[in-house]
Amino acid sequence: MDYIVRVNMSTESVTREKVPLQYAGLGGRGLTSSLVYHEVPAGSDPLGKNNKLVMAPGLLGGTGASSSSRLSVGAKSPLTGGIKEANAGGTAGGYLARSGIRALVIEGEAAAGRHYILYLGKNQDYQLVKVDFEVKGIYALMTQLREKYGDSISVICAGPAGMNKMRSAAVVVSDPEFNPRFAARGGLGAVMGSKGLLAVVIESPRGMQRIPADRSRFIETSRKLNRLLLENPKTGKTFREFGTTAITKVVSEIGCLPTRNFSQGSFEEVESISGEALRDLIRERGGEGCSGKRCMPGCVICCSNIIPGPDGKAVVANLQYETLALMGSNCGFSSLDDIARLNYVCNDIGADTIEMGAALGVAMDGGVLPFGDLAGTLKLLEEVREATPLGRVIGNGALITGQVLGVKRIPVSKGQAFPGYDPRALKGNGVTYSTSAMGADHTAGNAFGDRATTDPLKTDGQVALSRKLQLRAAVLDTLGFCIFARPPLLADPDIMVDLLNSLYGWDMDSSGLWKIGEDLLKLECSFNRREGFGPEYDRLPEIFTQEPLPPHNTVFDMEPQEMARVYDFD
Amino acid sequence: MDYIVRVNMSTESVTREKVPLQYAGLGGRGLTSSLVYHEVPAGSDPLGKNNKLVMAPGLLGGTGASSSSRLSVGAKSPLTGGIKEANAGGTAGGYLARSGIRALVIEGEAAAGRHYILYLGKNQDYQLVKVDFEVKGIYALMTQLREKYGDSISVICAGPAGMNKMRSAAVVVSDPEFNPRFAARGGLGAVMGSKGLLAVVIESPRGMQRIPADRSRFIETSRKLNRLLLENPKTGKTFREFGTTAITKVVSEIGCLPTRNFSQGSFEEVESISGEALRDLIRERGGEGCSGKRCMPGCVICCSNIIPGPDGKAVVANLQYETLALMGSNCGFSSLDDIARLNYVCNDIGADTIEMGAALGVAMDGGVLPFGDLAGTLKLLEEVREATPLGRVIGNGALITGQVLGVKRIPVSKGQAFPGYDPRALKGNGVTYSTSAMGADHTAGNAFGDRATTDPLKTDGQVALSRKLQLRAAVLDTLGFCIFARPPLLADPDIMVDLLNSLYGWDMDSSGLWKIGEDLLKLECSFNRREGFGPEYDRLPEIFTQEPLPPHNTVFDMEPQEMARVYDFD
Repeated sequence: MDYIVRVNMSTESVTREKVPLQYAGLGGRGLTSSLVYHEVPAGSDPLGKNNKLVMAPGLLGGTGASSSSRLSVGAKSPLTGGIKEANAGGTAGGYLARSGIRALVIEGEAAAGRHYILYLGKNQDYQLVKVDFEVKGIYALMTQLREKYGDSISVICAGPAGMNKMRSAAVVVSDPEFNPRFAARGGLGAVMGSKGLLAVVIESPRGMQRIPADRSRFIETSRKLNRLLLENPKTGKTFREFGTTAITKVVSEIGCLPTRNFSQGSFEEVESISGEALRDLIRERGGEGCSGKRCMPGCVICCSNIIPGPDGKAVVANLQYETLALMGSNCGFSSLDDIARLNYVCNDIGADTIEMGAALGVAMDGGVLPFGDLAGTLKLLEEVREATPLGRVIGNGALITGQVLGVKRIPVSKGQAFPGYDPRALKGNGVTYSTSAMGADHTAGNAFGDRATTDPLKTDGQVALSRKLQLRAAVLDTLGFCIFARPPLLADPDIMVDLLNSLYGWDMDSSGLWKIGEDLLKLECSFNRREGFGPEYDRLPEIFTQEPLPPHNTVFDMEPQEMARVYDFD
Repeated sequence: MDYIVRVNMSTESVTREKVPLQYAGLGGRGLTSSLVYHEVPAGSDPLGKNNKLVMAPGLLGGTGASSSSRLSVGAKSPLTGGIKEANAGGTAGGYLARSGIRALVIEGEAAAGRHYILYLGKNQDYQLVKVDFEVKGIYALMTQLREKYGDSISVICAGPAGMNKMRSAAVVVSDPEFNPRFAARGGLGAVMGSKGLLAVVIESPRGMQRIPADRSRFIETSRKLNRLLLENPKTGKTFREFGTTAITKVVSEIGCLPTRNFSQGSFEEVESISGEALRDLIRERGGEGCSGKRCMPGCVICCSNIIPGPDGKAVVANLQYETLALMGSNCGFSSLDDIARLNYVCNDIGADTIEMGAALGVAMDGGVLPFGDLAGTLKLLEEVREATPLGRVIGNGALITGQVLGVKRIPVSKGQAFPGYDPRALKGNGVTYSTSAMGADHTAGNAFGDRATTDPLKTDGQVALSRKLQLRAAVLDTLGFCIFARPPLLADPDIMVDLLNSLYGWDMDSSGLWKIGEDLLKLECSFNRREGFGPEYDRLPEIFTQEPLPPHNTVFDMEPQEMARVYDFD
């Protein structure tokens, strides 16, 4: 029997209920978005007591299927004002699923100044524990929680950015080595902070494996997936060697790498921040550095890395492409050591490196500090941690930073910063940024991998492509799959169908799978409409339709009327 | 023959065209909103080259009719993202109308760093003059312009707030004594700044009176209006003695006076900032202080004042109710001298005292400085002038200030600060703030005067009341009338009809007059819809529906579905 656990921060109560029928068959983003849609009243303040923060493992969470135990976190976003889901690897998704918790719903708000840890022990030993220590950063918090609760836990927490209710704040999940993994986008960490919830500590439900309805078929399909992942050159080799950073040079070559606040699409020093340079640095320095680590137990892709400093000691784990792009080229940094250090500080603050990199780029463009100024950037990040007025400006993201400073080029859609693909030179992503209820979010439908079949500089086919990609993302996010597992899953969607059917004893076909995604996208769109965002809101800031992006000198010229057909499924 | 004068700041050109047929019969807000609706493409950046700043006298501007020469200023608002009109007294409306300029349309944008003065001399001597001096404040600018162009001019200008593109910036108009009058709301001064236009200097078109089609009837009706205005106890006596500040005590008594960031509706020290106290201060100190001054030639109401300091020297002219409320009780100031000084500095910066008072109240609530801290507030205002990061936060208004600082109670609708009537205890105004395309704006439909017939604490009848008030405001703004002239005009709307018919040779009846207003409200609403603001956007921030306002402990409980019927005219 699976449950929804509700935590009311106003009344300090934790309750457990059977999953209502209306949510049967939903997990991950499908479940977080449905709960947010049905339970958060229109017009709710995203940082007020009527918003709800929902955490849910995907439908396959806690099983042995590779790469499928991501944790979805959902709420009404303080950054976009619309519905939001962000997901992260780490151990929490699997732990919750194996504990029979299909969703954790954080409701109400704690009395002013009170902060809590939610402890979810075995045998429904649920406790809200008042926090009596000050939190300076994510890394120290992880250590404190391990000291208090031991190492057989998974942690979901907010950092200083979240506890100070800044819109760049992430919800952070611990991985097997207690490195932080980020449900990064939408300012969901600020929602956690607004509830007064510092951390959720989940005791490991060891021995309580999820029992598939058809165990042998589930294992068989799982093994098939593992084999296909390992055979595929991307998921079996490239990702292990380079992680997400494999694409850096190509993104610059095709001209959509954010560079100095999105003023260029290619970075002249891209070689020094490329995936190849990162791999070589790890190899040369050795020490604690390595690639090929995993963020979730059982994942065979192993895309993670640990970046060593010159002395071989770890600086940060896991440096990803989006951070290289937004905090690297976009802020004018060309040293991997600099970027790793900035990544570490952002992680410690609990802030999304995409939103922060974009905000810093805007601040540099606005003359607050020069591009590539490491000392200035580190000082500014400490201001974010300390929540000074200027720190709060930056910590609230690119839009507010740009509005405050009067900067013309503010790279956002629906209030959220562009990730590492300039939409002027990868137009399919521009369609996703414009139309997705999630705002500018590459994980909602990234056209980068389809550039061979759909010319990223042309408008032809981009709406259909974004439609397909958004649908796939919605399905993967509902199952709990990492988007890195895409190649075999999308080549043969029956793998997903088989896993679901054999796990739950269902009799679904692939059309049922896509129907879940369609319904989800339409539901999320309806949420935003109900909040007052009309279809005409689905477009990029004017400057991206006017200012040509070097080197291709293209603008984003998709017609809003055409983009409005993005959810016209056959 | 009347003209539209277009100024293209990109090409530094000034051209003149006959008023196109589609705009015949429109003036003031009717004309600014129509031009903005038809000429500003959907999705334009309010501070970008595709926005247009339109200035237009009302239909009766430049005639001898009392109180009818206000200047409407319109654009897409950087504060609300929607359409905006704000109007001001002063001499510019009359000068433009008498010069045959029905509208001045500022288009494009100047090259970065370039600022201009637009000189509109007699005989179509139009010049764009590059500015080679630095502007520190409105008062010094007025002096500089008088030195350069003499005293037979009217000035329309932006201050430091506008030139630095801050969202609280007003468009400022000179009155007969070169005191500044504010087209205050919507951040239209930032639009002026974004165009690179520092000032418009209009040479007095003396001797060029507008000739009514039926001169004797026009004069007869004008005289009737004058007589009625002078006979009416409000317009003939109260306003002359107290100006807009007459209502201060009553607003506090009925419990809707903004106090310490809208946390209370009554101010315990209201006596010391009341209209009566202001009148007594002026009388006692004498010197340059006085009341009963006019902002426009020919106005018989004479509601303006000059506030003297202890030494009798003028501190500021004209201290109004909204400033007493927003910068007084809302910021915890109970000394008229303090408020007058803050008013002077805000004027000098060229910022709206409503938006700034609300932003300062939010900043005080957020712990940046204590309520009632004069030195701290003056320091903060100098930061606004100098455009420091914190100054830019405050200067961008209450919403951004609240978002940056993480304050829960942010008194805005559609991004714009509430004026001096808390909508929880004057619910008709809450309907206007929610539904008007103008955002929170008392001049769009103020229910304060109707509290005898519609209980301000109850929901009954508020939608119908706001409908009526918004319609009246739209008509008055189109004719160029000051809302203070309402009593006789609304008691007998045929006065307005007669004035229009005899001026233009029309044959309109009063239903035609109201039709102009209806069409205008619907057009403005359509503009906002086209920008992506759906009907569901028309509501107040959640906290005002939840947090009871002392002393009546009421919340804003109008149903959004009921408010959605506000433009259902019979």
